[in-house]
Amino acid sequence: MAIYLDNAATSYPKPDSVQKEMNNYMQNIGVNPGRGAYQRALKAEQIVFSTRQALGDLFNIDDVSRIVFTANVTEALNLAIKGFVPEKSHVITTSFEHNAVWRPLKHLQKEKEVKISTIGAPDRAFIDKKELEEAHSKNTELVIINHASNVTGAIAPLETVGEFCQEKNLPLLVDSAQTAGILPIDVQEYNISMLGFTGHKGLLGPTGTGGLYIDSEIELAPLKEGGTGSKSYLERQPEDLPDRFEAGTVNSVGLAGLKSGVEYLLQRGIEEIRQHELQLTEYLLDVLGDLQDCEIYSPLSAEDLVAVVSVNLADIPAEEAAYVLDDVYDIMVRAGLHCSPQAHKMLGTEDRGSLRFSPGIFNSKQDIERAGEALKKILQRGTGVNS
Amino acid sequence: MAIYLDNAATSYPKPDSVQKEMNNYMQNIGVNPGRGAYQRALKAEQIVFSTRQALGDLFNIDDVSRIVFTANVTEALNLAIKGFVPEKSHVITTSFEHNAVWRPLKHLQKEKEVKISTIGAPDRAFIDKKELEEAHSKNTELVIINHASNVTGAIAPLETVGEFCQEKNLPLLVDSAQTAGILPIDVQEYNISMLGFTGHKGLLGPTGTGGLYIDSEIELAPLKEGGTGSKSYLERQPEDLPDRFEAGTVNSVGLAGLKSGVEYLLQRGIEEIRQHELQLTEYLLDVLGDLQDCEIYSPLSAEDLVAVVSVNLADIPAEEAAYVLDDVYDIMVRAGLHCSPQAHKMLGTEDRGSLRFSPGIFNSKQDIERAGEALKKILQRGTGVNS
Repeated sequence: MAIYLDNAATSYPKPDSVQKEMNNYMQNIGVNPGRGAYQRALKAEQIVFSTRQALGDLFNIDDVSRIVFTANVTEALNLAIKGFVPEKSHVITTSFEHNAVWRPLKHLQKEKEVKISTIGAPDRAFIDKKELEEAHSKNTELVIINHASNVTGAIAPLETVGEFCQEKNLPLLVDSAQTAGILPIDVQEYNISMLGFTGHKGLLGPTGTGGLYIDSEIELAPLKEGGTGSKSYLERQPEDLPDRFEAGTVNSVGLAGLKSGVEYLLQRGIEEIRQHELQLTEYLLDVLGDLQDCEIYSPLSAEDLVAVVSVNLADIPAEEAAYVLDDVYDIMVRAGLHCSPQAHKMLGTEDRGSLRFSPGIFNSKQDIERAGEALKKILQRGTGVNS
Repeated sequence: MAIYLDNAATSYPKPDSVQKEMNNYMQNIGVNPGRGAYQRALKAEQIVFSTRQALGDLFNIDDVSRIVFTANVTEALNLAIKGFVPEKSHVITTSFEHNAVWRPLKHLQKEKEVKISTIGAPDRAFIDKKELEEAHSKNTELVIINHASNVTGAIAPLETVGEFCQEKNLPLLVDSAQTAGILPIDVQEYNISMLGFTGHKGLLGPTGTGGLYIDSEIELAPLKEGGTGSKSYLERQPEDLPDRFEAGTVNSVGLAGLKSGVEYLLQRGIEEIRQHELQLTEYLLDVLGDLQDCEIYSPLSAEDLVAVVSVNLADIPAEEAAYVLDDVYDIMVRAGLHCSPQAHKMLGTEDRGSLRFSPGIFNSKQDIERAGEALKKILQRGTGVNS
């Protein structure tokens, strides 16, 4: 049976209830939420609202109208960054940001003369207050932190960063692409002003879902304007959330699935899930550590990372190893830069990328064991590619 | 049995194959297209590519990499308008545009001193070359046409507008929200430079899908930057389409459904579908015309409109009539401004909105008959609301 170890790209499989909820939506609801006022349109609206509520429960957000849905976390981060960062200001971020943060920042650097300071290192995600202090300047307007690297899995110290931001009265934007549904996230405890999340990874929903939580003290300009089903007479986008940032029809069938994914998490409990992933990660680090000639770029202590581990095997190109793992051993992993060239520069792997293992909640120790055996054979025999 | 006559908001039901394809994707594919290089990721990519191909067949687009997917047609129109219209330029559009066009234009008017001329009338969508000539000025950079009004159903003369644009060497942006999958659209024949489409209406796909076709002569700035799974090392968004405009994970499960919806259309044939909808529209106009005290805002000749008809019944508020149709007769229609306040201003209905009937391909004459009987009773007895 095929083994899927690419949950950092998207989680698979999803809980059965996710597909059931989507089927129910397609068959029995099927209408556009927030447009008509007939019973079924209200039911559709109720489902979308319940999705917000489930996310509110997960992230400890009181006013769930401040959760706005986007096509994916990339759009959420674009909205947060472009909608908030003023011309000629300064932003502090990390060296392990995904392109979803890095490219919008480089765009603002060019178009709006925004200055960027990067701190921290992707192999341990260590950030201390001193580093933050040193990066901080008079015109710093935003701190952006990747909660965990999608290359090394290293977890950033959100509490420390949150405290610093509170002291300086600086808004904090968190990219939770690799952590939502996987680590506990409490927007109030961590002093998070904006939280970007994807629906199709740890939250166990389908692709096409994601969103941004926006604290009530944050003023954002929308990325898009259009119909909202509310206040149609206005020539401007309505001011009320979530409508202000949800122009056009939302992905209601996808959100029905996301609702179900988040409800699964709430029921099983994030702590329980974290324990399961900790065990898998610990075992994965053991298995990889036992290999001859396997360089591990991730932190070596399971509690310092989410279940994402990057390695390279001797001088075997990562793409070749991934190909053989798939072709011969039926094991799916990802090779390359993982959309995070900055992190690879810091790791010295910008030329070769890495081989990334990311087990999910439905993987078992046996899956990791089989991956370890396959890797051992590849190291012994080579990939056979071009030979 | 419930009768759904709100297909202008979203089509319902979808062909069975749409849900089947989505289920297949969720169960048997499930991975992120364009990220990993394992077999299944390539399968996922193939499905997304087949969706582009099916749309290419439908709209006569040769290079399908120039079809980019967005969250909905609103995003597609925002991308086209904001990505293309230069500062201090001039745009010609119609009085029957949806807020998805109108609000981005008003935004550009304020932020970039863009001037807007509106032509045409929503009750017949008549636009002649003289009107276009008169609106045209030295700094006109774009013509934007709603292919059919979502309030009255009136079809705009795309051929005339396309000819004018060709003569003046002006790019033409078409909003096909109410026509894609319903009327034949040939981007080459009509000289369309950009075509915004929604996946969940006439194309019979799920919500969360839509896109923009961009002619090779059009240069657009992206709305969002981020990971694309390609050229990750670049600090800018890659130049190649579709990646340039598809930052972040696409709604692959939604696109699997959309593929199936478009394939259904291609198989049944747009002409056949148009004939069915023409019959329904003709019958709907007859039934509504026979009522005492029913004001019809749509063109009265079925071939002048898509299956979208707006009316008001005597002095009964549209919302009340819609409520009773749903509550008593189990008939779903939409009341209000339908996100198109401009059209309502022209119709003199900006205060009361209208009651909109929009049958779809799965409706029958019997459905229209039942709606007619219900309306007759409402006109005879009143709505009973507040009485």
